[in-house]
Amino acid sequence: MQLGLIGLGKMGFNMRARLREGGHEVIGYDPRPEVSDVATLADLAAALSAPRVVWVMVPSGTITDQTITQLADVLGEGDLVIDGGNSRYTEDGPHAKLLADKGIAFIDAGVSGGIWGLTEGYGLMVGGADDDVARAMPIFEALRPPGPVEDGFVHVGPVGAGHFAKMVHNGVEYALMTAYAEGYEMLAAEDLVRDPQAVYQAWTNGTVVRSWLQQLLAKALKEDPGLNDISGYTEDSGEGRWTVEEAIRLRVPVPSIAASLFARFLSRQEDSPTMKAVAALRNQFGGHAVKRVSESG
Amino acid sequence: MQLGLIGLGKMGFNMRARLREGGHEVIGYDPRPEVSDVATLADLAAALSAPRVVWVMVPSGTITDQTITQLADVLGEGDLVIDGGNSRYTEDGPHAKLLADKGIAFIDAGVSGGIWGLTEGYGLMVGGADDDVARAMPIFEALRPPGPVEDGFVHVGPVGAGHFAKMVHNGVEYALMTAYAEGYEMLAAEDLVRDPQAVYQAWTNGTVVRSWLQQLLAKALKEDPGLNDISGYTEDSGEGRWTVEEAIRLRVPVPSIAASLFARFLSRQEDSPTMKAVAALRNQFGGHAVKRVSESG
Amino acid sequence: MQLGLIGLGKMGFNMRARLREGGHEVIGYDPRPEVSDVATLADLAAALSAPRVVWVMVPSGTITDQTITQLADVLGEGDLVIDGGNSRYTEDGPHAKLLADKGIAFIDAGVSGGIWGLTEGYGLMVGGADDDVARAMPIFEALRPPGPVEDGFVHVGPVGAGHFAKMVHNGVEYALMTAYAEGYEMLAAEDLVRDPQAVYQAWTNGTVVRSWLQQLLAKALKEDPGLNDISGYTEDSGEGRWTVEEAIRLRVPVPSIAASLFARFLSRQEDSPTMKAVAALRNQFGGHAVKRVSESG
Amino acid sequence: MQLGLIGLGKMGFNMRARLREGGHEVIGYDPRPEVSDVATLADLAAALSAPRVVWVMVPSGTITDQTITQLADVLGEGDLVIDGGNSRYTEDGPHAKLLADKGIAFIDAGVSGGIWGLTEGYGLMVGGADDDVARAMPIFEALRPPGPVEDGFVHVGPVGAGHFAKMVHNGVEYALMTAYAEGYEMLAAEDLVRDPQAVYQAWTNGTVVRSWLQQLLAKALKEDPGLNDISGYTEDSGEGRWTVEEAIRLRVPVPSIAASLFARFLSRQEDSPTMKAVAALRNQFGGHAVKRVSESG
Repeated sequence: MQLGLIGLGKMGFNMRARLREGGHEVIGYDPRPEVSDVATLADLAAALSAPRVVWVMVPSGTITDQTITQLADVLGEGDLVIDGGNSRYTEDGPHAKLLADKGIAFIDAGVSGGIWGLTEGYGLMVGGADDDVARAMPIFEALRPPGPVEDGFVHVGPVGAGHFAKMVHNGVEYALMTAYAEGYEMLAAEDLVRDPQAVYQAWTNGTVVRSWLQQLLAKALKEDPGLNDISGYTEDSGEGRWTVEEAIRLRVPVPSIAASLFARFLSRQEDSPTMKAVAALRNQFGGHAVKRVSESG
Repeated sequence: MQLGLIGLGKMGFNMRARLREGGHEVIGYDPRPEVSDVATLADLAAALSAPRVVWVMVPSGTITDQTITQLADVLGEGDLVIDGGNSRYTEDGPHAKLLADKGIAFIDAGVSGGIWGLTEGYGLMVGGADDDVARAMPIFEALRPPGPVEDGFVHVGPVGAGHFAKMVHNGVEYALMTAYAEGYEMLAAEDLVRDPQAVYQAWTNGTVVRSWLQQLLAKALKEDPGLNDISGYTEDSGEGRWTVEEAIRLRVPVPSIAASLFARFLSRQEDSPTMKAVAALRNQFGGHAVKRVSESG
Repeated sequence: MQLGLIGLGKMGFNMRARLREGGHEVIGYDPRPEVSDVATLADLAAALSAPRVVWVMVPSGTITDQTITQLADVLGEGDLVIDGGNSRYTEDGPHAKLLADKGIAFIDAGVSGGIWGLTEGYGLMVGGADDDVARAMPIFEALRPPGPVEDGFVHVGPVGAGHFAKMVHNGVEYALMTAYAEGYEMLAAEDLVRDPQAVYQAWTNGTVVRSWLQQLLAKALKEDPGLNDISGYTEDSGEGRWTVEEAIRLRVPVPSIAASLFARFLSRQEDSPTMKAVAALRNQFGGHAVKRVSESG
Repeated sequence: MQLGLIGLGKMGFNMRARLREGGHEVIGYDPRPEVSDVATLADLAAALSAPRVVWVMVPSGTITDQTITQLADVLGEGDLVIDGGNSRYTEDGPHAKLLADKGIAFIDAGVSGGIWGLTEGYGLMVGGADDDVARAMPIFEALRPPGPVEDGFVHVGPVGAGHFAKMVHNGVEYALMTAYAEGYEMLAAEDLVRDPQAVYQAWTNGTVVRSWLQQLLAKALKEDPGLNDISGYTEDSGEGRWTVEEAIRLRVPVPSIAASLFARFLSRQEDSPTMKAVAALRNQFGGHAVKRVSESG
């Protein structure tokens, strides 16, 4: 089928390629002319036959807001917008309403798979009305990995449900990464272990802990044994923060996801104010020596 | 090759089957005559041609200690003992020494895979001298999963290294399970999500969080949606505790493994003394109502 | 000076008493006629001489919103409203604006001390303009504990700052309570310790851990050794949740406050869905027995 | 009464002073002649009238072991040794036995109060037989803070119980420090808060969180606002590690004490191997940029 695709960055660019391989006609729009198929959003709308289906794959927050607001202008009655970006699920309701006022339908789609999705397919979690999901199904079929449909695609629930599931997916992802990373640090700290990489490599088959992320860590350790050239400084893209916030709203205890999020915050601090205060306290009551910044400076 | 196998429980029984399928001659010993091939450990030693190789697959702690002590008596110069159970790695040195005094070599082997190992193969992490490991390699080959040897087997280092790596494996396993479980609880708590099982099923393919454990959780949720018939009461077998203890020795921060361990402790308490004390404190300073045990009794 | 006081519950009732002892004229309003000095908010406004000062001490959220909205009607130019309740600090800006439109000034005041404040004085953290704080200072003087003013009162910053500081105070309070409670559980678990209460009593003087909360736990253990009649079920009033949410916004790692909050969530669950999922997983891969709900039912 | 005191370091030196002020005859021994009253342990034994009481106040571990072994030689039947250092409670049994073989009694005494104990008195937690504790009571009376005896002294139980209670005290202390420090970091991160020190100062009176440690943090922040000259690098002296290890043995969940311990480990790492692995993983699956060490080098 025909699809408009807005946003041809790291994810969108690959998705266009996979969709075209799947036999779909994709007209892509991106502000960078060198990758874009059309010059403007209006051109995109004009190039598509009604009823149109447009997939939005742009950074969440302001840019997604602006894109959907513009689409409400250039699209019309009977069209369908799919937000495949990492929007917070609470933004889906307002976006759906904005579009519904123009007779435009809305689906939110959580997309997992990163740069590997092009070849392996993307895990998809979607929210929306049954009719809308059915209409976009050929697109989802082309994007999802091969195999049974239920093993890589899920219609989670009404509008918002797709992004909610994707948010939880990413929260879980944070905690999984920490789990493997703690194991790595222990192996690297123990003299008995000749090569932590070899252990991670051996875990890829037959063990209880084997997984795709686990394979990737084995691969990363092969490329840079000791991870000597990688800093621990780690960004967080939002989903981890939202997961903990939603867990609080739902009164769900998430100690391991929260610990993973806090570890990322800490990784970006030059020195921890919390630990400065602890060191200051020890000095106060015990006369324990503190390490002065001036000493190391 | 020929192998003596002591312990034909859930793990050993399956391993004997897999080894025999692999063309090896296995003489099994177990105190339960209905599964045992010989009547006593002495009979086992007599039935094997020197130099013998004996695999010990019994519960860690006292029973492994006793078994290895008895083997030091019935085996002799040039024989080899492999401890494939879940012994703490700190016990391997003393066991190796006890056997070395009789000229018997020792390998520690961490074995992962649970009840699935029979068909899929067992992930193996071994510690010992190069010569000893080379000698036992045909056995490891038959037990490990198909594919490249380094993807399911690792010679981690000297005696103790295999069990150390297995211990860390299990610590990581605890944290992975908690990560997936926290995600499940969030999906189950949110009304937008029609069926958490369907989400876990969809995560099995294409997503960043896909893994063998993740598939098992999808399977468990299919068998008992809502997990209504399963209590949260969860045992811990030792490795999780040891992992945190060794992390402390190595000064490695393991917040997510420790959180997973503590969650298991908590799951086995009728009521938490810690939270009783918190509730008592709130009552003291704020006059906040506490829930009296007598009220619910 | 003269003060209108809205809300004569557990906190407000005592505060009226302390203010009157301090020589102030307090006209209290509460929907319960048996404790109220006037019949309506309009009566309260009429009974006060302009420029009026009115202290709001009602539950945060809807009731505080409604009260401030009503005060915007019955008060006028030059009056001052102080919100002494546990409002989230993000609500102070809108409240201040609503009142400013009528020429009414606003101060937010975090009040700590619980039921003990009547006799010992209340710790006060206030936010607002310098002039407004100066004007209300006689009230703050009467409420705060004896001693140097800076040891029980702080003008934290502009509107919102008082409630922000109070929110952090309560987050810290959660973590302190957990710290003492974990220590209690350890003492209670160890056979060598004859009486955990005696240890907590001894800690009240000379030790590094001595504190007011610590004294209260000693007292609670004296009243109910073993805490046999207290359930661990523990409510949270909002500040703990807000503290973690604001920590996420500020990218501040707060592992111990978050752990304390999650422990309260967990204390209110019949059984933990997270641990049910962990138990289900163990059963899947290891064939480990799970405790069936039906067994204990 | 007469007392031999071994170890005149930061703690022992002050304790000798306090005991002498309390009217006791103290003969101190220390390897540094400039502070020692006698030249050798044998001289100390000779200078004391039998039955002797000797207080050991030296670093835990090897030095305490050696000191007690030497005392077993120079003391005799009917004498009493008190270990007031921070020995692990599991060492008390062997020490007691070693001395008992010579007819020498043993008490373990946990001592809290740091450098402030000289003027304010020391919180004392002791383990041992009733008769032995009774005999040493005049010493405990001089060391403990003024006020009711049960508010600064406790006979916790048999040998080992004193050090166990002290260990838990220190574990709780770790968690309290983290709680206050997290609160400080939040106040320091929020622009609305003019001066975190002023908030901590105000918390010293009337609030629920007031405590001795809380006062010390206010003091530290007054001396170095912003804690600019203090590094977050924080040692741990052993008790925190032991507390978590004993919690694991007792199956007591201690998330906040463990988090505090791990934060100290982390504070001493140049960069976190765990976070390097997390960053490497993000790069693998998402193509997310990592911060190269070479970039900042």
